[in-house]
Amino acid sequence: MEFSSKLLERAVNEMSQLPGIGKRTALRLVLHMLRQPKEQTLALTEALQTMRNDIKLCKSCHNISDVDVCDICSNPNRNEAIICVVEDVRDVMAIENTSSFKGLYHVLGGKISPMDGVGPHDLNIESLVEKVKLGKVKELIFALSSTMEGDTTNFYIYRKIQEYNVLTSTIARGISVGDELEYADEITLGRSIINRIPFEATLKS
Amino acid sequence: MEFSSKLLERAVNEMSQLPGIGKRTALRLVLHMLRQPKEQTLALTEALQTMRNDIKLCKSCHNISDVDVCDICSNPNRNEAIICVVEDVRDVMAIENTSSFKGLYHVLGGKISPMDGVGPHDLNIESLVEKVKLGKVKELIFALSSTMEGDTTNFYIYRKIQEYNVLTSTIARGISVGDELEYADEITLGRSIINRIPFEATLKS
Ligand SMILES: [Zn+2]
Ligand SMILES: [Zn+2]
Repeated sequence: MEFSSKLLERAVNEMSQLPGIGKRTALRLVLHMLRQPKEQTLALTEALQTMRNDIKLCKSCHNISDVDVCDICSNPNRNEAIICVVEDVRDVMAIENTSSFKGLYHVLGGKISPMDGVGPHDLNIESLVEKVKLGKVKELIFALSSTMEGDTTNFYIYRKIQEYNVLTSTIARGISVGDELEYADEITLGRSIINRIPFEATLKS
Repeated sequence: MEFSSKLLERAVNEMSQLPGIGKRTALRLVLHMLRQPKEQTLALTEALQTMRNDIKLCKSCHNISDVDVCDICSNPNRNEAIICVVEDVRDVMAIENTSSFKGLYHVLGGKISPMDGVGPHDLNIESLVEKVKLGKVKELIFALSSTMEGDTTNFYIYRKIQEYNVLTSTIARGISVGDELEYADEITLGRSIINRIPFEATLKS
């Protein structure tokens, strides 16, 4: 790509550092900014800068927060005896969106992945174990992605907290509600048969 | 979407103002920035700000430029007697990429579109007519998109410069090189038959 301006080229190059944004998309976005009032670019860059500099992680659950302890952790109506363990902030948002969970979260910040150089000490595992040690937590729900790394991380945490009196569970895997069986992948379908639940249990909900 | 942080929400909202960037994509991009060093976000916002504030349009062709007269217009090896009329900066880049044109450009900044409230006076048409009046331009090549608005704009300019001694042409439309006929749209295929060229002419190139 030949640019007629170094300023344009630099802006496109920086934009295309973002994941999933190629040079062509970056150029389209940057030319759009040039057609909009300057105030709009200022609002964007200001919002990104402030966020990057001032955002906090909740001291308790490591969720993104504007205050030291996030709104979920400081909400007296949430059940602090149940902690849902997730990889990242988007998982918290996805589960909150379902309105089906009234416990607290613990954001690990990823999963154990030797391939990517991520070990247990790169994740927020120690602070989770400390929470369990205090004795108030009755159940940990593992809600990591269903991959080898997710399973490894679940098992690592499980071993660490085994000696304390805490229940562990994982979220149910199966065929998505409304999905046709024939389109489900084999592993999901296989697991959904192995982990079948009594039919009467489905009548209650 | 429920955000645990106002700073995060604002950053996502600003990002999702960009065309083709939905809330989910914006969140993904913003969370990526949070995982990268602060310097990276600073480099991006700085590049966007500087570009938006300092970029110039070439005084002659209205192409994006860092200087008053762009590199193409000020290049003594380009033929100033032929001007290729385009809608925007991306068209200049696309044509430059083919290395097939050694004349100059004139960037209109859009096309006449009453539906979008764009009239002739919103475009860089007057400066093009002024150039033609000076008498050095021998040919104008219309390279606008092949739509009703493009055709209207071509014709508007054509009428304005008709009285001066200047050739006008439009870029050839047809089946893309390498494309199967059966997949071409009807209009393109129809035009490519009407505007057929002598077979001998194709043997020379
Ligand atoms: Zn929290
Ligand atoms: Zn120029």
